[in-house]
Amino acid sequence: MKNVFYLFLVIIISSCTYKMEIGDSEDPEPEQVNEFAIVIHGGAGTIKKENMTPELELAYNDKLAEAIKVGHEILKNGGDAMDAVEATIRIMEDSPLFNAGKGAVFTHDGTNSLDASFMDGKTLNAGAVAGISTVKNPISLARKVMTNSEHVMLSGAGGDAFAKALNDPAIEIVPNSYFFTQNRYDGLQRVLKAEADKDPQAAVLQLQDAFTKDSKYGTVGCVALDKKGNIAAGTSTGGMTNKKYGRIGDAPIIGSGTYANNATCGVSSTGHGEYFIRAQVAYDISALMEYKGLTLEEATETVVQKKLVDLGGTGGVVALDHLGNISMNFNTPGMYRAMMNDKGELVVGMYKE
Amino acid sequence: MKNVFYLFLVIIISSCTYKMEIGDSEDPEPEQVNEFAIVIHGGAGTIKKENMTPELELAYNDKLAEAIKVGHEILKNGGDAMDAVEATIRIMEDSPLFNAGKGAVFTHDGTNSLDASFMDGKTLNAGAVAGISTVKNPISLARKVMTNSEHVMLSGAGGDAFAKALNDPAIEIVPNSYFFTQNRYDGLQRVLKAEADKDPQAAVLQLQDAFTKDSKYGTVGCVALDKKGNIAAGTSTGGMTNKKYGRIGDAPIIGSGTYANNATCGVSSTGHGEYFIRAQVAYDISALMEYKGLTLEEATETVVQKKLVDLGGTGGVVALDHLGNISMNFNTPGMYRAMMNDKGELVVGMYKE
Repeated sequence: MKNVFYLFLVIIISSCTYKMEIGDSEDPEPEQVNEFAIVIHGGAGTIKKENMTPELELAYNDKLAEAIKVGHEILKNGGDAMDAVEATIRIMEDSPLFNAGKGAVFTHDGTNSLDASFMDGKTLNAGAVAGISTVKNPISLARKVMTNSEHVMLSGAGGDAFAKALNDPAIEIVPNSYFFTQNRYDGLQRVLKAEADKDPQAAVLQLQDAFTKDSKYGTVGCVALDKKGNIAAGTSTGGMTNKKYGRIGDAPIIGSGTYANNATCGVSSTGHGEYFIRAQVAYDISALMEYKGLTLEEATETVVQKKLVDLGGTGGVVALDHLGNISMNFNTPGMYRAMMNDKGELVVGMYKE
Repeated sequence: MKNVFYLFLVIIISSCTYKMEIGDSEDPEPEQVNEFAIVIHGGAGTIKKENMTPELELAYNDKLAEAIKVGHEILKNGGDAMDAVEATIRIMEDSPLFNAGKGAVFTHDGTNSLDASFMDGKTLNAGAVAGISTVKNPISLARKVMTNSEHVMLSGAGGDAFAKALNDPAIEIVPNSYFFTQNRYDGLQRVLKAEADKDPQAAVLQLQDAFTKDSKYGTVGCVALDKKGNIAAGTSTGGMTNKKYGRIGDAPIIGSGTYANNATCGVSSTGHGEYFIRAQVAYDISALMEYKGLTLEEATETVVQKKLVDLGGTGGVVALDHLGNISMNFNTPGMYRAMMNDKGELVVGMYKE
């Protein structure tokens, strides 16, 4: 009887040990997927192939590839994630194809008003500008707010005054007319006419892209991981056509439009900004990884496909984590996007495949 | 042998059942602590008894008690958490004792610029205004942005234009001179003189309270839980003396200054805004409860005493959860604060006890 007891004891203990081993093997130490990596977006929305000409498709493809390769080169040469993010976003800001910098949509008053934010995942420092109108590259100014001011967020004419006071050749001051592009201006006229005609489509037209006539949230963003393990993220936008009342969307809001933390991930959002603020999209992805142990892909999937959808919010994110995993997740028919890994492999996408 | 086997099987199964019961009793269904509750703050900082006169101490005590009792009465009568938060904050905004509404500090340009935010924990709807200058009660305008606009955040002259367009008697339009108070104005002059004299104390003076000469982050905030289980939160501020460049702090930022979610908690922050944005203070408390299972007190303690301190951020929060637990947590020497539970018990505090 005593022997039988010991026999069972041994069986129980071995079974426990066995279970612990199973448990361990189910949860192995996560591996570095990419030594460095970079991911970008150029806005999300109802981007459809049938509304694209082959020329326009090529133009977007080329510009996304051109922008991400600049950042990738910096990372490959051992450069800083922050430099990669800034350089990449500047190229998209300088292109009229995207609603950020040159190519920004027009406000109700017929001006261009720009928002951007920037975050350093190493120090959790951040900078942002909202409603500025005379700085060629708002992403560079957002970074300067982080490094050259005691503040995180500057707004309106005050943001422009800060830019001027910097007197820094990297922060080019331009007249607001620099941001004029004919088809974005025509886009505003269409919305204003629809409003005057009390056309219920006016609200829809506010989101219509001037190139593709698709409804789109135009924002550009970039997240990078460098060889030192530092993550940086940035987002830049011209907001919404016919924007009134000094509306601020999610793009310049740290935690909504942009977040970066070396311990978890970096995120840049694009979408219906109001929902992205309410859902705390960018920080929530980080929190799900830190507090709930989700992977990057599980976290972006939870936030973009579940939490945002439950609120009624549309859009997407690009994100990457400290292991070099990359996620491009959106709940709209399309998102302009590209990613490059440490092997130099480039993926450019527009539609939901 | 077979009998012995069954005997052990029974023992093992009973022991498992016993363990499950133990497990259950260790983690009981949390009990409703208060059917309804309300908590407020009037700013945090180096609030010290030696810098207070008995008259001033009494004035703060009385105003905090007056404000919270108005909200408490609404809740006691079955009213809405949102109504309680708005009514309570309006009283603090109307008092020159606090840096919000009447009594707001002056910007570098000698004007008053006001920020506020509001969130409904039932729907996760939110509204905020930043840098407005002609609305007597910014908290009411923040609520109107939530209910009467498609946006979450309006800024600058645009926010004032929205207020005017509402044409609503509840949103009283005032000239900017309404916000003038002599000692806040004198406070600005002290900072400007220190700046002109290149006095290194200028930065410190920016945070000096005009009444107590203590260094303080002046903000008011309120969180309420009503009998229907709805949580609402709001925050209102005049920002920082000598504020430049359209600086936006955490008070109007959803997730940093204000957050409310019926599933977890409501939070209003007060402190060095830049750190509160970087640390995502208000939403982080909710995320720690939702994803990590922390109690309200554990979550506020983690964020205010650990995460904020690690970043170098000073200030505090008031918060309550869906069970009616209340937390008033700060890492500064003092915080003007008050709480009332469903039994009508009132606690008013200023210093760290």
